[in-house]
Amino acid sequence: MLIDGKPYRTVWMEGNVVKLINQLLLPHKFEIYDCNNYIETANAIKTMVVRGAGAIGATAGYGMAQAFLGGEDVMIAADFIKNTRPTAQNLFYAVNKVLKAKSKEDALQIAQSIADEDVEACKKIGVHGEKLIEDGMKVLTHCNAGWLAFVDWGSALSPVYTAKRKGKNVFVFVDETRPRCQGSRLTAYELAEEGVDHAVIVDNAAGHFMKKGDIDMVITGADRVAENGDVANKIGTFTKAVLARELGIPFYVAAPTSTIDFDTKSGEDIPIEERGEEEVKDMFGLNKDEMSKVEIANRKSKARNPAFDVTPAKYITGIITENGIIKPHQVLQIPR
Amino acid sequence: MLIDGKPYRTVWMEGNVVKLINQLLLPHKFEIYDCNNYIETANAIKTMVVRGAGAIGATAGYGMAQAFLGGEDVMIAADFIKNTRPTAQNLFYAVNKVLKAKSKEDALQIAQSIADEDVEACKKIGVHGEKLIEDGMKVLTHCNAGWLAFVDWGSALSPVYTAKRKGKNVFVFVDETRPRCQGSRLTAYELAEEGVDHAVIVDNAAGHFMKKGDIDMVITGADRVAENGDVANKIGTFTKAVLARELGIPFYVAAPTSTIDFDTKSGEDIPIEERGEEEVKDMFGLNKDEMSKVEIANRKSKARNPAFDVTPAKYITGIITENGIIKPHQVLQIPR
Repeated sequence: MLIDGKPYRTVWMEGNVVKLINQLLLPHKFEIYDCNNYIETANAIKTMVVRGAGAIGATAGYGMAQAFLGGEDVMIAADFIKNTRPTAQNLFYAVNKVLKAKSKEDALQIAQSIADEDVEACKKIGVHGEKLIEDGMKVLTHCNAGWLAFVDWGSALSPVYTAKRKGKNVFVFVDETRPRCQGSRLTAYELAEEGVDHAVIVDNAAGHFMKKGDIDMVITGADRVAENGDVANKIGTFTKAVLARELGIPFYVAAPTSTIDFDTKSGEDIPIEERGEEEVKDMFGLNKDEMSKVEIANRKSKARNPAFDVTPAKYITGIITENGIIKPHQVLQIPR
Repeated sequence: MLIDGKPYRTVWMEGNVVKLINQLLLPHKFEIYDCNNYIETANAIKTMVVRGAGAIGATAGYGMAQAFLGGEDVMIAADFIKNTRPTAQNLFYAVNKVLKAKSKEDALQIAQSIADEDVEACKKIGVHGEKLIEDGMKVLTHCNAGWLAFVDWGSALSPVYTAKRKGKNVFVFVDETRPRCQGSRLTAYELAEEGVDHAVIVDNAAGHFMKKGDIDMVITGADRVAENGDVANKIGTFTKAVLARELGIPFYVAAPTSTIDFDTKSGEDIPIEERGEEEVKDMFGLNKDEMSKVEIANRKSKARNPAFDVTPAKYITGIITENGIIKPHQVLQIPR
């Protein structure tokens, strides 16, 4: 994708350095963040300099390659990197894949292929998903499942970008996606850079626009897909799925098959990360050209902050994968 | 209700001055805001120094009394005050009632009685609603329909306060209620001051906790109730009602009968205020002891900001009024 007309990936490697677009500073500042070794790379995942299922996976793969190249104990490195975030399936997929490398060169090549395969899968998701989008359609998306959440193209937004490049008019309603506002910060940024018409709304407003008939389709990403087709994704996804079914609006999940966890039978078995209450009680943003925070909630009150929720398969119209669009109950039929 | 142990109303009059608890500064600072004439009072409603159905109504009534006392053209004053906010029924109810006054003394007395009747109605809502709350129940509420939204007691929170004073254990999940966060700012503040156990959650998280079985009942307020039982309330209310019905959780609306608009046949006829996009793109809060704002959304993106939505009667289990709990289709049977 293009930033100010120049092509970028979300993550790449130059020599021994892992390069990341610093997502903590977007949309206010565009900066490249350097990770000089696997520990710095793991910390970048943990502190969310990089986030999103595919981007975490590719970054973790490059981090493992750094461990190989630096002659580190790769078992210790694998444990260290896996301990950064608990929910995203792609993290474990990538670390385990590079861990099987036979040499430094092999590790680098596997890491590179994980990133390249992510790009290829997302591009194909766009080709399949684009067929669902008719000219003039209005699509709702939740959180960021665009190219910043992957290496390029994205999952939920790839069909939108593909439709746009084919000359279709698409309008995107962007849920801001509290608490971290990946919608109003990242999805809005991506769509603006790509010239896709869109509007940011608070998460509370999606139901209102759906009921008014202003939304034709919902597409979200996924952090993990269980064998039975249940989907773990950013908190609030379940709510949109219930609203969509109630109001007769198709609800699609877009995800490469690397997001499927064949060791998890149903969504009830997926661990849900509960994050710190400061994400609910404070808000980060730009204040006079500096990243700053304001306190928004009553100080004496507690907050609860589950980062993901599970959408049962019955609410999902289809899952858009690189191999085509499937029904949730067909997940088990995908070749592993 | 008590603030630091001292009893307060949300709005009252001393001489010709309308006194308001400044809700723009809560929960960070507790300050009283003086309005010296009806223009200042109307501006306080418009800029949301005071907000909430009943509180707006009582303030508007006092503003009209100021116009009478100051020898102003009361028809012009009535228009000016009515033009501050379009959705809350209580505003029009109060202005029209004081407009019929025969003298300065009469105007003051009518305004005072509007405030006193609001307190009495909310107290009775608590008595009726309290019967729905069993010991140990967990209640979800949206926005602020506590005493800050009225003159005292509140609507949605009055049953909670009444249950608490009767010795019942009640836990309240507080939707933060973007964009203005009246939940995490005001409801959380009220509950903490009253010693009610609670936790703030982002609006996205309510569905997750409902599905897990952590929420036994939903109670919200209302800005306007139509003849057919449809309810306009803070944006996001409709979403909670759909979730509640899908998951088999009772969904109650609490409102004094002054919130019923007998001139509106259905929710589709209620005008929905669309507010400025800065409420979505920026966030106000406390930064180093000063009220400040941070930019959170992409600057190049537009935002849409409907302030209310309509919940159709079919999603509402019951409406808790000062005359008892009714089914939505019974609204027309209420004596006018």
